Amino acid sequence: MHPTRWGNPSAATELSADMRGLIDFAVGATRDTPAVAEVEVPVSVLAPELLEGLRGLLGGEHVLTDDADRRLHTRGKSTPDLLKARAGDLSDAPDAVVRPGGHADVEALIAFAVQHHIALVPFGGGTSVTGGLAVEREGYAGVVSVDLGRMKDVRDVDTESMTVLLEPGLRGPEAEAKLAEHGLTLGHYPQSFEYASIGGFAATRSSGQSSAGYGRFDSMVVGLSVATPQGTLELGTAPASAAGPDLRQLVLGSEGAFGIITAVRVRVRKLPAEKVYEAWTFASFTAGSDAMRHLAQNDLLPTVLRLSDETETMINLASQSDIGGDAEGGCVMIVGYEGADIATRREQVTAALTGLGGTALGEERGAAWAKGRFHAPYLRDSLLDVGVLVETLETATFWSNRENVYQAVKTSLKTELGDRRIALCHISHVYETGCALYFTIAVSETEDPQAQWASAKEKASQAIIDAGGTITHHHAIGTDHKPWLAQEIGPVGTSILRAVKHELDPTGVLNPGVLIP
Amino acid sequence: MHPTRWGNPSAATELSADMRGLIDFAVGATRDTPAVAEVEVPVSVLAPELLEGLRGLLGGEHVLTDDADRRLHTRGKSTPDLLKARAGDLSDAPDAVVRPGGHADVEALIAFAVQHHIALVPFGGGTSVTGGLAVEREGYAGVVSVDLGRMKDVRDVDTESMTVLLEPGLRGPEAEAKLAEHGLTLGHYPQSFEYASIGGFAATRSSGQSSAGYGRFDSMVVGLSVATPQGTLELGTAPASAAGPDLRQLVLGSEGAFGIITAVRVRVRKLPAEKVYEAWTFASFTAGSDAMRHLAQNDLLPTVLRLSDETETMINLASQSDIGGDAEGGCVMIVGYEGADIATRREQVTAALTGLGGTALGEERGAAWAKGRFHAPYLRDSLLDVGVLVETLETATFWSNRENVYQAVKTSLKTELGDRRIALCHISHVYETGCALYFTIAVSETEDPQAQWASAKEKASQAIIDAGGTITHHHAIGTDHKPWLAQEIGPVGTSILRAVKHELDPTGVLNPGVLIP
Repeated sequence: MHPTRWGNPSAATELSADMRGLIDFAVGATRDTPAVAEVEVPVSVLAPELLEGLRGLLGGEHVLTDDADRRLHTRGKSTPDLLKARAGDLSDAPDAVVRPGGHADVEALIAFAVQHHIALVPFGGGTSVTGGLAVEREGYAGVVSVDLGRMKDVRDVDTESMTVLLEPGLRGPEAEAKLAEHGLTLGHYPQSFEYASIGGFAATRSSGQSSAGYGRFDSMVVGLSVATPQGTLELGTAPASAAGPDLRQLVLGSEGAFGIITAVRVRVRKLPAEKVYEAWTFASFTAGSDAMRHLAQNDLLPTVLRLSDETETMINLASQSDIGGDAEGGCVMIVGYEGADIATRREQVTAALTGLGGTALGEERGAAWAKGRFHAPYLRDSLLDVGVLVETLETATFWSNRENVYQAVKTSLKTELGDRRIALCHISHVYETGCALYFTIAVSETEDPQAQWASAKEKASQAIIDAGGTITHHHAIGTDHKPWLAQEIGPVGTSILRAVKHELDPTGVLNPGVLIP
Repeated sequence: MHPTRWGNPSAATELSADMRGLIDFAVGATRDTPAVAEVEVPVSVLAPELLEGLRGLLGGEHVLTDDADRRLHTRGKSTPDLLKARAGDLSDAPDAVVRPGGHADVEALIAFAVQHHIALVPFGGGTSVTGGLAVEREGYAGVVSVDLGRMKDVRDVDTESMTVLLEPGLRGPEAEAKLAEHGLTLGHYPQSFEYASIGGFAATRSSGQSSAGYGRFDSMVVGLSVATPQGTLELGTAPASAAGPDLRQLVLGSEGAFGIITAVRVRVRKLPAEKVYEAWTFASFTAGSDAMRHLAQNDLLPTVLRLSDETETMINLASQSDIGGDAEGGCVMIVGYEGADIATRREQVTAALTGLGGTALGEERGAAWAKGRFHAPYLRDSLLDVGVLVETLETATFWSNRENVYQAVKTSLKTELGDRRIALCHISHVYETGCALYFTIAVSETEDPQAQWASAKEKASQAIIDAGGTITHHHAIGTDHKPWLAQEIGPVGTSILRAVKHELDPTGVLNPGVLIP
């Protein structure tokens, strides 16, 4: 990862002329707004004897204090994270980066942190988009980034139970490559797939682009090992149980605040023999989402199912103008099939979508989506380079409330940002009872884009909660969403999180300020 | 419910001559051991002014102190519960039974109980088989059974989202009857279906006989309202979310120890147009369970899928000797299909099972299973009447560990109970990664059947944990399973449950002694 940009910047592409023209038209003239040249990270406050202690625990080569390492572990990749970094603000840089080699190292590290009141920030891919790495520093002897990148083992490959134990530092492609050696796949492809890690998927309740077929990450997890200041928690004796509350679900979504996840046992599937993605078009977002609902409620889901609203469809056409196609209006749906034998399901879904007013556009546009499926964060960088603030917001709600939430968010963005903004939406995760709505917003930067972001974020988040949606379907809470988590789960729910935090991490060294309102 | 027997005793049938002969042969000569005649319940210890206070809160007609009412609310329906009642021991009788009419009543009742240190025992169907109603009395001003039987509303029928809000006092058939008016079904049919309640299904993470098609009860719950001493917890803004840990999963399985569930929003399905149950036979338990695993791992599950081991198959044939059939050896599998159009799935499953060595036995034996599906608890009463101790044990584990758990439980029962016992097993809940094993044990009673039960229960439970299974797949923890829950989730897991309990119920008035090790 680059300190001010997504992923590998050389993989980014410049905005097409069409795209830049559209942006100029919609949000106002673009202008070059480059990131400041590389800036100094603040001086580390960690006392030499504490650094020495960490070296003693983990070995000198696994305690990093170079500016370059500290810079790369500063914050995540939310738009405000990038705005701060681009403006030269690296005030959240960790005082050191450590690289434990296994569960015992993590246990020892936590004990040391408790003893010396050091804040620990678990670091997988560094891809948080909700401020999940921007911890409180006040009162701590220092902030240490716990880079789990040495913990990449794949163990206990059990092809009878179809489970595998994965270590938390494995990034998406690494996990898939190692599983592929056994003919297996996880099938978890969030947009952050290329950089995000197994531990992060678990800690944030990630959901991938193939969730219709493979399920959310939380539905893949059958076991967890978690190191906490009170000892190790080992969970998962069976696929399902009635042995009290399912404590795995308390670790999933805990964002490093309760413990550091050191192993995740997951359900895997056979590597699909076939993968086909195709596009459909529907007359309207309502018609398309009704079709999605029909599939979800009639056990007819394909592996990938996503629907862009009218505006997102138009923008996608502009950015893929070489592809063309018949349907210049309406809403495009991407439908993907993965498996050993996809013919039957494809016939069933095709018949259903046709009956519900859909028109097939063929595989070319589906393949284009698959090719660019992890590319959007690069586009955000390109837009930030030309003074266009880009942000995404997402929520989920029950089907009968989707139009209400959709309109509430669009109205709040229009009220806050005026007409010169683009607001796109798609549905990319569906359930029998509801769906997720994912918004992308682009607006011309003001003089103070961080304040501009904060105000719009607040208004849109409150609109989501007021309309009855969840504050996040798959981006997690981090620090950005805490006020709305408190509203969503209420004072009793908040008190439960605080009680568990206090029990497991009484001195508050784990990701302080993250998750718990 | 009857104080010493299951359900409506007039629905029970006598043991057939065949069955009695088989039991005589297998466990030793039977002898009549009737329950003692109706006995006195202990004098209520609840002070008159507290009774008066309860009457003030709920109305005099909803505070019951008759012996008959107290007797009917004494304990649940576990084998030791029945043994005690049959022996005339009603020492766990509540001091009063109250019947709140809604959430506000429950809130007021909890506040009153906290103020006066009264233990509250939520009562739905009274069908617990793990001592979930046998609370601690020491130090409390009294024990009050909170019968939720007045809270039976069905609200917010949302056929777009396919969700409905159910009140906790609805029993299985009542909920299904009210949903059927809207063409809907929950599809949750545990063996206790005829008496157990919606609140109990949620509080215990129940799983029904149609779990292959409809899922476990926890997978049906999308929202919960819970009254706690610290206020009301309202959960469930979306089907799925990344807004921190899913706190719904902390309420599910909480067995009344964290709060009283006053409403459950569930996912529903369309009432199936067709229901067909058929039987198959496999050469062995291993062959049959391999076939189940194949279905679960290839997205081929029917609605009902259960497989009896060799012994259970033999006993079932003896008890249904009027049905007959070709396969007198091997293992019988029941396969059920429910839905609008079952033909495609039935063809797929039939082809798969045939390919895996199964032989179809037709619908007659499937229909016989469906007819008797809720009858087993009556059979237990009939056996207790003739001095045969009957108990069930259940667990779940991953597929690769199923043979190990199966053998470990059978060995422990043989070691403990000797050769003159019958131990049957079936698999009735399957997942991609594993399955549940359900054991039924029959043995001739000794002089002290309660001690005999306790010793066998301890040995079998320890065998389950030592073999890596969960202490319960769908019977819950209650009081009977607490020592093994502590082993299963370890000291850190136990400390989490205690912390949540202390946060929500600091004075410990909710189901004291239940769930928390």
